[in-house]
Amino acid sequence: MNDLLLRALRAEPVERPPVWFMRQAGRYLPEYHEVRAKVDFLGLCRTPELAAEVTLQPLRRFPFDASIVFNDILVPPAAMGLDLAFLKGHGPKFNDPIRGVDDLGRLKAPSIERDMPHVLETIRLLVAQLEVPLFGFAGAPFTLAAYMIEGGGTRHFTRTKSFFLHHPVAFQRLLDLLTDVVADYMVAQIEAGCAAVQLFDTWAGALDPEDFRRFALAPAARVLERVKGVPRLYFARDAGPYLRWLPETGADALALDWRVPLDQARAALGDLPVMGNLDPEVLYGPEDIVRARVRGVIRAAGPRGHVFNLGHGLLPTTPIASVAAAVDEVRAWSWAREG
Amino acid sequence: MNDLLLRALRAEPVERPPVWFMRQAGRYLPEYHEVRAKVDFLGLCRTPELAAEVTLQPLRRFPFDASIVFNDILVPPAAMGLDLAFLKGHGPKFNDPIRGVDDLGRLKAPSIERDMPHVLETIRLLVAQLEVPLFGFAGAPFTLAAYMIEGGGTRHFTRTKSFFLHHPVAFQRLLDLLTDVVADYMVAQIEAGCAAVQLFDTWAGALDPEDFRRFALAPAARVLERVKGVPRLYFARDAGPYLRWLPETGADALALDWRVPLDQARAALGDLPVMGNLDPEVLYGPEDIVRARVRGVIRAAGPRGHVFNLGHGLLPTTPIASVAAAVDEVRAWSWAREG
Repeated sequence: MNDLLLRALRAEPVERPPVWFMRQAGRYLPEYHEVRAKVDFLGLCRTPELAAEVTLQPLRRFPFDASIVFNDILVPPAAMGLDLAFLKGHGPKFNDPIRGVDDLGRLKAPSIERDMPHVLETIRLLVAQLEVPLFGFAGAPFTLAAYMIEGGGTRHFTRTKSFFLHHPVAFQRLLDLLTDVVADYMVAQIEAGCAAVQLFDTWAGALDPEDFRRFALAPAARVLERVKGVPRLYFARDAGPYLRWLPETGADALALDWRVPLDQARAALGDLPVMGNLDPEVLYGPEDIVRARVRGVIRAAGPRGHVFNLGHGLLPTTPIASVAAAVDEVRAWSWAREG
Repeated sequence: MNDLLLRALRAEPVERPPVWFMRQAGRYLPEYHEVRAKVDFLGLCRTPELAAEVTLQPLRRFPFDASIVFNDILVPPAAMGLDLAFLKGHGPKFNDPIRGVDDLGRLKAPSIERDMPHVLETIRLLVAQLEVPLFGFAGAPFTLAAYMIEGGGTRHFTRTKSFFLHHPVAFQRLLDLLTDVVADYMVAQIEAGCAAVQLFDTWAGALDPEDFRRFALAPAARVLERVKGVPRLYFARDAGPYLRWLPETGADALALDWRVPLDQARAALGDLPVMGNLDPEVLYGPEDIVRARVRGVIRAAGPRGHVFNLGHGLLPTTPIASVAAAVDEVRAWSWAREG
């Protein structure tokens, strides 16, 4: 088993950073489209053999040091009773979003084994075959709550913010419910065999400082408190201004988006391992630029406690050759040579 | 003349911060819709009497300490020859965006007096009537370049980044051209009577650290170098992680979005005046919350060198009563009482 990821997450000395990419499975690969031709997105998530297959696809092309189970962060809210649909070209949509306090009564506390067994089965299938650590993941309570209230992707968070400004107690109840579900879900993924887990707080960066600490960081910390035994990562997009507060999550490592200079992150975070943070859109550039930017990220992060990744998920139109070049450049790095 | 704004921008002692709101004129006001019923958006920008009228509308309702000329940041690229349209509900769109290096040949260097006389005429009309300082403004070179390449609003900046990664010299040429246009444009607005100017770099926060300094900060600094005689503000949305670099623009004050804790900004920026930064979506909350958050922003900023504003533009569905409450709360503040 390749243990480079786990050593880097313990801040042990490594020759080069481990490398994997958020959304490394998915639409930029033609073999992914072949699978999707036979099944819709949610059907894919819910069919363990197919979800395992698309999880493995990028590993056949690129020597990544970690894998992440193919799944969607909105599976738990769907298991809580919301009607989730993925519309072609429009992303996820809840047909019956939470619009008022009374809607909270519609939500049920799901059982992971009963309502989301497919995720655990996918993990078991993968663990039997993988030679690299497998990440489990979940959406963080705030981001899930915001999706459930907005009903789908949005530029503004007017509904979510109106909800918590007018009904802070009910919003906290929703976060508490989600905290339980997400913690149970992560624990179950670890029991099924995941070697690390990541909590995605994609939308937390829309919050102002007060709301960020109260509604994003605090519930994330309560989730991670209950998740033990493997490294636990936290990723909040657009949260660069809140860098100094992120350790309050209690995460074992922080994933940072591409706007956070990693040398400054080091200064703010001390020994806490970091993951990131190449701008995914740099992969649209020529190969020499891709390789130079990869080296820049590694150099800024320094030799200890760094997992190389993108600063956000791979985009569907990313050139495959750029992914290959970036992975190759990370693997060619040598701290012995640089030092 | 109310000079509170100018005193705050010089970091002189003030009893309370001056207050105005980005996009204080616009769609949240029914009287704005009455004007728009007669003329389309670009027609409104290009008709000095009407542009002056909608600029004045918010001042009749709220005792703002500053005004900002009603206009759009994309007027200069349109004057450079691009075909600009505002589609109902979809925002601005260039029908003939810059898609390759050859497209740069289509751009012409506009004369402000010949190609954008309406903006200057609007300013002259306003200055004759206003009892508060009038802001002029422009989009910063990077943000204008990105609009011209993307063709309109976007979630990703793949086209822009592909352009500058593959054609850095041509992209720099575009930025240089825009730097000249924007500097001339701001100088002309000052000559027409503006008492302050603001450079809006709405999209700069999408850039990674290296690109941000090279393609956003450096051209903004070159613009501001050429703009003299009045306070010059710089606003880059989502640029919280780059706070320590923003003084490189040479701006006299920095407008900060709602994710930057103003006490931390103070620590990073020293005596440089700041403007901001109430989350515009807090205005969807109940009045007591609006008022409490207003006080929180003022307290975090401290008594010297703070102009109260939102952390981004007013949203079109903002309740008018919240705007009134926020302005009232700023005006009720007293540093003598607090101190």
